[in-house]
Amino acid sequence: MTERLVVIGGDAAGMSAASQARDRRGPDDLRIVAFEKGRHVSYSACGIPYLVGGEVTDVKDLIARRPEVFRDELSMDLRLDSEVVEIDLDRRAVAVQDHQGGTRYWEPFDQLVVATGAVPHRPELPGATAEGVYGVQNLDDGIALLQELENRRPRTAVVVGGGYIGLEMAEALVRRGLKVSLIDAAEQPMSTLDPDMGALIADALRGLGVEVYLGERIEGFSESGGRVTAACTENRAVPADLVVLGLGTRPNSALAEAAGIPVGETSGIRTDRRMRTAVEGVWAAGDCVETFHLVSRRPVAIALGTHANKQGRTVGVNIGGGYAAFPGVVGTAVSKICEYEVARTGLTTAEAAEAGFETAEEIVESTTRAGYFPGARQIKIKMIADRGTGRLLGAQIVGQEGAAKRIDALAIAVWHEMTVEDMTGLDLSYAPPFAPVWDPVLIAARKAAERVDQLSRKD
Amino acid sequence: MTERLVVIGGDAAGMSAASQARDRRGPDDLRIVAFEKGRHVSYSACGIPYLVGGEVTDVKDLIARRPEVFRDELSMDLRLDSEVVEIDLDRRAVAVQDHQGGTRYWEPFDQLVVATGAVPHRPELPGATAEGVYGVQNLDDGIALLQELENRRPRTAVVVGGGYIGLEMAEALVRRGLKVSLIDAAEQPMSTLDPDMGALIADALRGLGVEVYLGERIEGFSESGGRVTAACTENRAVPADLVVLGLGTRPNSALAEAAGIPVGETSGIRTDRRMRTAVEGVWAAGDCVETFHLVSRRPVAIALGTHANKQGRTVGVNIGGGYAAFPGVVGTAVSKICEYEVARTGLTTAEAAEAGFETAEEIVESTTRAGYFPGARQIKIKMIADRGTGRLLGAQIVGQEGAAKRIDALAIAVWHEMTVEDMTGLDLSYAPPFAPVWDPVLIAARKAAERVDQLSRKD
Repeated sequence: MTERLVVIGGDAAGMSAASQARDRRGPDDLRIVAFEKGRHVSYSACGIPYLVGGEVTDVKDLIARRPEVFRDELSMDLRLDSEVVEIDLDRRAVAVQDHQGGTRYWEPFDQLVVATGAVPHRPELPGATAEGVYGVQNLDDGIALLQELENRRPRTAVVVGGGYIGLEMAEALVRRGLKVSLIDAAEQPMSTLDPDMGALIADALRGLGVEVYLGERIEGFSESGGRVTAACTENRAVPADLVVLGLGTRPNSALAEAAGIPVGETSGIRTDRRMRTAVEGVWAAGDCVETFHLVSRRPVAIALGTHANKQGRTVGVNIGGGYAAFPGVVGTAVSKICEYEVARTGLTTAEAAEAGFETAEEIVESTTRAGYFPGARQIKIKMIADRGTGRLLGAQIVGQEGAAKRIDALAIAVWHEMTVEDMTGLDLSYAPPFAPVWDPVLIAARKAAERVDQLSRKD
Repeated sequence: MTERLVVIGGDAAGMSAASQARDRRGPDDLRIVAFEKGRHVSYSACGIPYLVGGEVTDVKDLIARRPEVFRDELSMDLRLDSEVVEIDLDRRAVAVQDHQGGTRYWEPFDQLVVATGAVPHRPELPGATAEGVYGVQNLDDGIALLQELENRRPRTAVVVGGGYIGLEMAEALVRRGLKVSLIDAAEQPMSTLDPDMGALIADALRGLGVEVYLGERIEGFSESGGRVTAACTENRAVPADLVVLGLGTRPNSALAEAAGIPVGETSGIRTDRRMRTAVEGVWAAGDCVETFHLVSRRPVAIALGTHANKQGRTVGVNIGGGYAAFPGVVGTAVSKICEYEVARTGLTTAEAAEAGFETAEEIVESTTRAGYFPGARQIKIKMIADRGTGRLLGAQIVGQEGAAKRIDALAIAVWHEMTVEDMTGLDLSYAPPFAPVWDPVLIAARKAAERVDQLSRKD
């Protein structure tokens, strides 16, 4: 008998799961129905800031696979504008609202994949619904913002929130020639880094001409004739023809939770390593789940396309009869703000403290190539080690071209619970166009090891 | 009583050892005499091709520390143009030939560091001593070649040997506007890679306008009036106003061996992890030693500045009363030939076979950034896994900007004996300016894991 697989959500996680399952099981064995509430599937949400900024000129470039590919080549029943509004675990069926036809119907399933993504934080602020206030959560948001830029030619913009999306959007708007201000409630932008490293980002932003207001909470928006005119904090009103909200996201788990699928303390859906929820035959993947942080040993919810793809693939392999597991994360992330590259992995100082570690830390400054080699750029690396054992708990990089991707080496070192002392012996690549003779990662490890040693003598 | 430390060799290994020892022990405790047979100390030999090519415009840029720094700030007795010609282990003294003064004398030591570097392979070929035939072993070689380029304006050049130095010199001479030919006895250039990856380099070289003669052994040089006119193989004579020899090096261990310091099968001086030779109080570091390959579990001699620095530092820390060890290598190397980047780590297919492994292999092609992101460049990654266990034995990268430094992540994976299957779950950084949503390293790991799986089903 043909098994019925229903997938809720047509982006990275859902479509990876569906594709992998199809790869291993033909249409006679597995019928796949995928519901997407929007009009786009399988697109790069991470690419939206670059579409807005103009580095990516065609929205089609952000679409990994068109709906026809899923329908024709992968024999899926993919339904757009179709929102799943209820999951009934007893009936093993989902209720679907067809936004085009206006109808509502039940679709039965044997196996279910919940890949409902994340919802943006949208505090209920006065004026937040005014015209000219944008989120950049999905591709339609990006397209709408792009049209606003092209049609209305705004001159001033306020970005609210200094995380990855906020900063990437600030860059995009600078590129578009707008006068940009950034408002962030935190002490420094990019609060996924420690403040000492985040301060470097704030400096970089100011260098780009961005007005940066830190430690100020957004309280609302002024409007005139229904359009936004300013973003207001307790201290000031910052004039804005355009506002972009980048206040982070949380797992979109309400649908699953309402159905009785267990959700964790992060509000993400709980799964095991194979991405099975607590309910037989129900899987979850992507921004809507919580995962396991291999350093803090705690659940975390991290919205990131790369995790979504891996988790979706894990689900699909398992549904397809294979074995796959998602091992957890070490919190690696990377971003670029104009010529500045930013990356992190493992725990920050604050996260390490929260997880019960005492830390030893060191920040070093070096260059991406041999100092004498053309194109050598600045790189600062912060390493955070466990004070007692010297184990690398986390690392952060701020620098220019060629700096940030070095985080991968550090991520693998964190993954393997290396000590900073042991890292000093690593056989990393050296040639003048790629590194000083002591790679910055090795210098940082050496300095961190010396710091651990110093502190142990004090004890 | 003041201990007497003698250091033979004033480049990376020797001067790192001396500096570290001084760092921990003052001049009253440790007298340091360092002998360098040439005129330069502490310079970047790896930078010579870039000096010749013109990317580095001032020879001073290649000098990490001037002799005065060692003398004045680090209180060392540094003697240039001073060649140690004999080590007498019974008398605990070295015989020194002063090439400036013409004198010869004995210098006593309590502890000795042998850091005599490498000697270039120079087969005894007819015409090899003609004017216009250059090695690029040391800084004086590089300076001489540069003067030749500027004064005589040669138009054609032949590079003999397709290893790192040969290829970097080929690029340098292309940059200088010469018509360059490359002769290599191997099937493909860069024989530190597998031939399937080396073939990509050959294509790249041809794309730069380099004439590439492979599988042809150099037999000698034609000359006229004492100057080279052509490089000859069994098949042809390639016209050359200038010849650069890049035939590799071997450890310069003759001095040590003559003194009775044990030398290994690679002809490198044998040391333990702390860089102690078998003789009490005698240390060795840098290109003159052999080290331990952590994958093949065999001794290897690899001439590389980064190892020399680490080993030298290890010696210095230990002489200084601390504890340091050099853990061995996994064979990581990186190079750049015009816009092409090349890197390797671990074992090649041939090396793996030689070390007794049966392998499973995969080559994948991807991009350095998201495919839609400006500046996305090609990257090819080859992974070599142990057929039975799936353990990553080695990896090679050929690509363009942003490709090669990814080898560091692979080097750490090799270091930790990860399986390619486990690597697929690694938390590597993703953002469109830095990687496709599946980083090329993850794609390669996935494909290699699939290959291992396929082969295991066959068994």
